[in-house]
Amino acid sequence: MRIGLLGCGTVGQAFVRTICDQGQTIARASGRRLEIGPILVRDIGKPREGIRPGQLTTDPQDVLGDPSVDLIVEVMGGVEPTGTYLRQALHAGTPVVTANKQLLSRQGAELLALAQESGTELRFEASACAAIPVIKVLRESLLAAEISGVTGIVNGTTNYILSEMSRGGLSYADALVQAQALGYAEADPTEDVGGADAAAKMAILASIAFHTRVRFEDVPFEGIDGLHAEDFELAKDLGFVIKLLGVARLEDGGISVRVHPALVPEHHRLAAIMGPDNAVVLESGTVRQIMLVGPGAGGVETASAVLADVLSILGTAEGSFLQNALVDAGRPLLTPDQTASAFYVRLRVADRPGVLAQIATVFAEAGLSIRSVIQRGEGDGARLVLVTHVGSEARMQAALRAMRDMREVHAEPVLLRLLTEDGA
Amino acid sequence: MRIGLLGCGTVGQAFVRTICDQGQTIARASGRRLEIGPILVRDIGKPREGIRPGQLTTDPQDVLGDPSVDLIVEVMGGVEPTGTYLRQALHAGTPVVTANKQLLSRQGAELLALAQESGTELRFEASACAAIPVIKVLRESLLAAEISGVTGIVNGTTNYILSEMSRGGLSYADALVQAQALGYAEADPTEDVGGADAAAKMAILASIAFHTRVRFEDVPFEGIDGLHAEDFELAKDLGFVIKLLGVARLEDGGISVRVHPALVPEHHRLAAIMGPDNAVVLESGTVRQIMLVGPGAGGVETASAVLADVLSILGTAEGSFLQNALVDAGRPLLTPDQTASAFYVRLRVADRPGVLAQIATVFAEAGLSIRSVIQRGEGDGARLVLVTHVGSEARMQAALRAMRDMREVHAEPVLLRLLTEDGA
Repeated sequence: MRIGLLGCGTVGQAFVRTICDQGQTIARASGRRLEIGPILVRDIGKPREGIRPGQLTTDPQDVLGDPSVDLIVEVMGGVEPTGTYLRQALHAGTPVVTANKQLLSRQGAELLALAQESGTELRFEASACAAIPVIKVLRESLLAAEISGVTGIVNGTTNYILSEMSRGGLSYADALVQAQALGYAEADPTEDVGGADAAAKMAILASIAFHTRVRFEDVPFEGIDGLHAEDFELAKDLGFVIKLLGVARLEDGGISVRVHPALVPEHHRLAAIMGPDNAVVLESGTVRQIMLVGPGAGGVETASAVLADVLSILGTAEGSFLQNALVDAGRPLLTPDQTASAFYVRLRVADRPGVLAQIATVFAEAGLSIRSVIQRGEGDGARLVLVTHVGSEARMQAALRAMRDMREVHAEPVLLRLLTEDGA
Repeated sequence: MRIGLLGCGTVGQAFVRTICDQGQTIARASGRRLEIGPILVRDIGKPREGIRPGQLTTDPQDVLGDPSVDLIVEVMGGVEPTGTYLRQALHAGTPVVTANKQLLSRQGAELLALAQESGTELRFEASACAAIPVIKVLRESLLAAEISGVTGIVNGTTNYILSEMSRGGLSYADALVQAQALGYAEADPTEDVGGADAAAKMAILASIAFHTRVRFEDVPFEGIDGLHAEDFELAKDLGFVIKLLGVARLEDGGISVRVHPALVPEHHRLAAIMGPDNAVVLESGTVRQIMLVGPGAGGVETASAVLADVLSILGTAEGSFLQNALVDAGRPLLTPDQTASAFYVRLRVADRPGVLAQIATVFAEAGLSIRSVIQRGEGDGARLVLVTHVGSEARMQAALRAMRDMREVHAEPVLLRLLTEDGA
């Protein structure tokens, strides 16, 4: 499977790297090797890791006209000449995967119709919310679920800025500078903070959810650049947080789609989405509410969505890649003793001097480090709660055995595990 | 496309109903009509809506041996004789969709191998977390994403009970009775509260996430029936909530999979999942964290997942159903004026008697009903915030025009919209 690449910026280079790194997994899953063929770039001279200079070209026909190319991946962006290139590829029956929301939200219906006429495929998961597979879920899992609403935080830049404004009390200007410093906002943030980026994504999502053509031009949008600090405080007093929402709804008379800042009740699940994450809530009578949350941008994340589309095209073409995906990778299963957790242990102990020291010694001897302790007198005994740092289950079991043997421990210890940053 | 059905309980009947209700959508999307053929049941006499008595049979060979059946949907549950029936179908090259976590978590690898040998498909989205498409996302979207962890709340019954225990301070026994009264727990809740149901789902999810055979017997599990009220209070003091978690991790030496109650940091995204919902966090170096949330059980929800699998098999077989899914349903787009929201309006007004009455009159004349008001003196004027109930955008715009014309309104009104239960 030879892939022709249009564009080789952040996403393109991440895509090439992923294909290299994941070559074996991909081959095992799909029964095919993916290979990067010709790559259209603006500047051949720029060094790019893992790419032979001979693969690079500035002539689009070296990619589009190459008969050895089985599939086109478009990560160059922009509406034109990109649209012309993709029409040429689809017209020739070559499947296309694109990450281009500008193009899809303006000419998606035409491009899909052309793909269908030519008996080929156009996939575009990465064009909305990067690695969150909301398009696949809408197109495939919820195809017959009669979606009635799509409500989402679909722009990570603005959600980061709004999170900092409400959490840290930063001004809009300061939060924007901070977002730029951390790489969450571009040098020119207009597309994001003005709401146009979110509007393009909502046009794509609404089109698929409601089987109706919704173009970028159809989506009225308002950004966050006109918000006042005063309204954040007032919203908080009223029990709300402010989020930039995309809202698409199936109503009695038709479809409404828009993007605007909104007051979200503080206990709503979208209120809890902080930082640069995206989240989309899909509503339907059949499945009630499904929410998908994850990083909505980033080179590697976007490349991952592009690769998933490539593999889906391969799967549809071959009709069997799902089976191969389940071939055994031969990884051993660990026994419970071999796993690690942070632990919570509750004990009923004798209320005597030296007992805490004895228990602490048991933990120390088992090699478990203690993070916090609560001790409280209770009648003739004491309740002792210890929370450990991450340690092995085997060590914890050894400590439990030692404690069970102590006269000062009056009842069977209660053991619970913690969900920590690196698992439970 | 003629479907043979094994079982016709809650899920089976919901599936038949969905096929009837969604017939047109399905036909438009897939280019094929789905038809229910023979149905295996235990009791022919029981009346079932929308099913002709002639379709029902108690002889499995009337379904499995019917050459007009293109696909088998299994919703009868149990390990045997169900496993034998599915092996017969797969052996004959008939694709199978199943919702059976007991069977899949015990014989999944064998059944998948058999499907592959016979050149057919076995799909089982509904076997874990009902309508949340976590299996599709793992198998297709994240196939090459190198999943390093799957952590989830995969049992709705226990999450409902734990939510009530921590939120309402109910005892375990009272919360269980309440869950049973609301239909969130079965009369015999052992499978759920003891952790076996979650362990079966984690075996399935871990198998797919790590491309490794993980059986039900490989997953150590602990339920919530032994939890003490005391530990909920202590956990809260320490900044945690208690959840029943399934945890599957790729570690240095291999894979660990287990189910147990765990202390989850109160600001962790899984801590916010309340009631009967399920949530699964998928971790990978490539896409960081993706979380899927939704109803993990229910007849209609499970039937929706079964139907999605049926359509995916159709899609793989036809190679083109995704294109058809985008055919225009011809729904009109509403103009912004035709949409409805609840509104937040902030005004700077003259601090004089009668101004609030004047503003309230403007809202009343526009037909907008006011939910709450905050008024505060500020220098020579006052700040007035009004929050309305849901009303049309056109009415709100009319009220804005009227306010702009008032001498008592000193600055351009600030308008924001609310996300309400029925949208934004």
